[in-house]
Amino acid sequence: MSILAVGTVALDSIETPFGAAEDVLGGSATYITLAARYLTDPVRLVGVVGHDFPVAYRQRLQNSGVDLDGLEVDEEGRTFAWEGRYHYDLNERETLATHLNVLDAFEPVIPDAYRSSGIVCLGNLHPTTQRDVLAQVEAPRLTICDTMNFWISSTPDALRETLSLVDALIINGAEARELADEPNLILAAREIRAMGPEILVIKKGEHGALLFADDVIFSAPAYPLEDICDPTGAGDAFMGGFAGYLAQRSTIDVEALKTAVIYGSAMASFVVERFGPERLYDLGPTEIHQRLDAFRDLSTIPVYPDGHGLVMDVSR
Amino acid sequence: MSILAVGTVALDSIETPFGAAEDVLGGSATYITLAARYLTDPVRLVGVVGHDFPVAYRQRLQNSGVDLDGLEVDEEGRTFAWEGRYHYDLNERETLATHLNVLDAFEPVIPDAYRSSGIVCLGNLHPTTQRDVLAQVEAPRLTICDTMNFWISSTPDALRETLSLVDALIINGAEARELADEPNLILAAREIRAMGPEILVIKKGEHGALLFADDVIFSAPAYPLEDICDPTGAGDAFMGGFAGYLAQRSTIDVEALKTAVIYGSAMASFVVERFGPERLYDLGPTEIHQRLDAFRDLSTIPVYPDGHGLVMDVSR
Repeated sequence: MSILAVGTVALDSIETPFGAAEDVLGGSATYITLAARYLTDPVRLVGVVGHDFPVAYRQRLQNSGVDLDGLEVDEEGRTFAWEGRYHYDLNERETLATHLNVLDAFEPVIPDAYRSSGIVCLGNLHPTTQRDVLAQVEAPRLTICDTMNFWISSTPDALRETLSLVDALIINGAEARELADEPNLILAAREIRAMGPEILVIKKGEHGALLFADDVIFSAPAYPLEDICDPTGAGDAFMGGFAGYLAQRSTIDVEALKTAVIYGSAMASFVVERFGPERLYDLGPTEIHQRLDAFRDLSTIPVYPDGHGLVMDVSR
Repeated sequence: MSILAVGTVALDSIETPFGAAEDVLGGSATYITLAARYLTDPVRLVGVVGHDFPVAYRQRLQNSGVDLDGLEVDEEGRTFAWEGRYHYDLNERETLATHLNVLDAFEPVIPDAYRSSGIVCLGNLHPTTQRDVLAQVEAPRLTICDTMNFWISSTPDALRETLSLVDALIINGAEARELADEPNLILAAREIRAMGPEILVIKKGEHGALLFADDVIFSAPAYPLEDICDPTGAGDAFMGGFAGYLAQRSTIDVEALKTAVIYGSAMASFVVERFGPERLYDLGPTEIHQRLDAFRDLSTIPVYPDGHGLVMDVSR
């Protein structure tokens, strides 16, 4: 099944306690497509870059098999650039600078050939832009959306309207709490799903992820990494792995969604090992399978050797 | 297999956003034994109370099948009392008052009949007191220890000595980070295990728990509770469930430890539903089995319908 990813293509400059990298390829659409591309074909990207976008980066995406017919080049401006810093607590990120550049006037136009894509991934963009994309696609099997605290607080009404239109929302724990104005994640999930998305994934970084679908909750572990180099793009790679796996399945049921969460978690776990999307360029199938198996080992509860353990009745 | 639990028996006064309770039965030894008692027999308690300890509370423990021959009554003083408050973020607890009372002079004496207990649970006490207990027991199959930030910062040397003597340590994430002086939990776990305990459990509250044993990491989910009434005692009930399950097993291997983490998590999940240990008085076997099954449902990754999902080789 085809995937359409609409989002940012960026030049990221990143500082972490483990080093720094300047003007690396970044952006939500970049990470979504680079991760999804291991799992399905075609993977289509809609985004915008400026005149300064390096030819080598375009080549990288193309060599990875991402369909770039929807990547607009705005010769009038420079590519969207983000500068950020992470501290030892890698859950906290500090934005040093955001240069919107060509993103400021970006109005995504979905090429005709992309309109009937099976799964539509909406990277973090203005909620109204996300809605404009949805208006240009024809009955996708699944629509998946991301957002961030900035839109939750500054454009709540537009966000609510977009949420009422999507099938799935993937956000982090702090965003879920803020969106629902509720500290308990289980209650927050209920409120958010009432806003529209039947499927909700809450990403919790080093604590894994929670899936809410039907009347089921699924708790996925985090891959235990001793060295996290750079968390940038992990959430987008999650969406790419999640969508990519679902694109393989004829039925998108709860079992498929649970497995998709593991594929998303695996892709995210690779991304954080290096600066930028470095790890997503050269993963081999064996390596991906081993990572997926590791998630299974990590969370499998042994089968009780003798049915259940013994439980006594001690009330008197 | 028998369990010996040494720790506090307390009168707790608790405020949460959902209500308040005064002078309820509390203390680490209380929660450990009340939880373990569902899983093994005998469960022995060593602790101290004062002249004011309500007869009804002693009766409660006795009716639950806890062996109280080791519960010292110090007629000279009052029972250890703790007053605390939880805010909406139930992970943060504020201690309003700690009245050590009879606990101040407490030097646990292990009754002869208790010295050969199979599993020894050391609730949160001064590390030197914990070590004194270990000196009085005869080759237990397993020793399990708890501690807290207060001992980590104020008696680091004594704590290190105790840690060098125990098989297992059960602490929360903040304590693990502080003890190892390392923000990454996976690295922190490695450092802590080098201090002595081969088995380490890191409790993460609403994010579940991590087990480190042999070269294995196991990630247990948290039970998704919409209403958490009072977190007091959850960690101690975890230890009780963990130890209680292990007491059933002839071999304490990694598989047994993983299952024990689920039993511990289940007991903790019951405790937080009511004020004090209320839920631990009247659990039925069916209810416990259902909770254990819920943990399994929550974290089971579906078996890939066609072996692994398809993973493409996209590098060129």
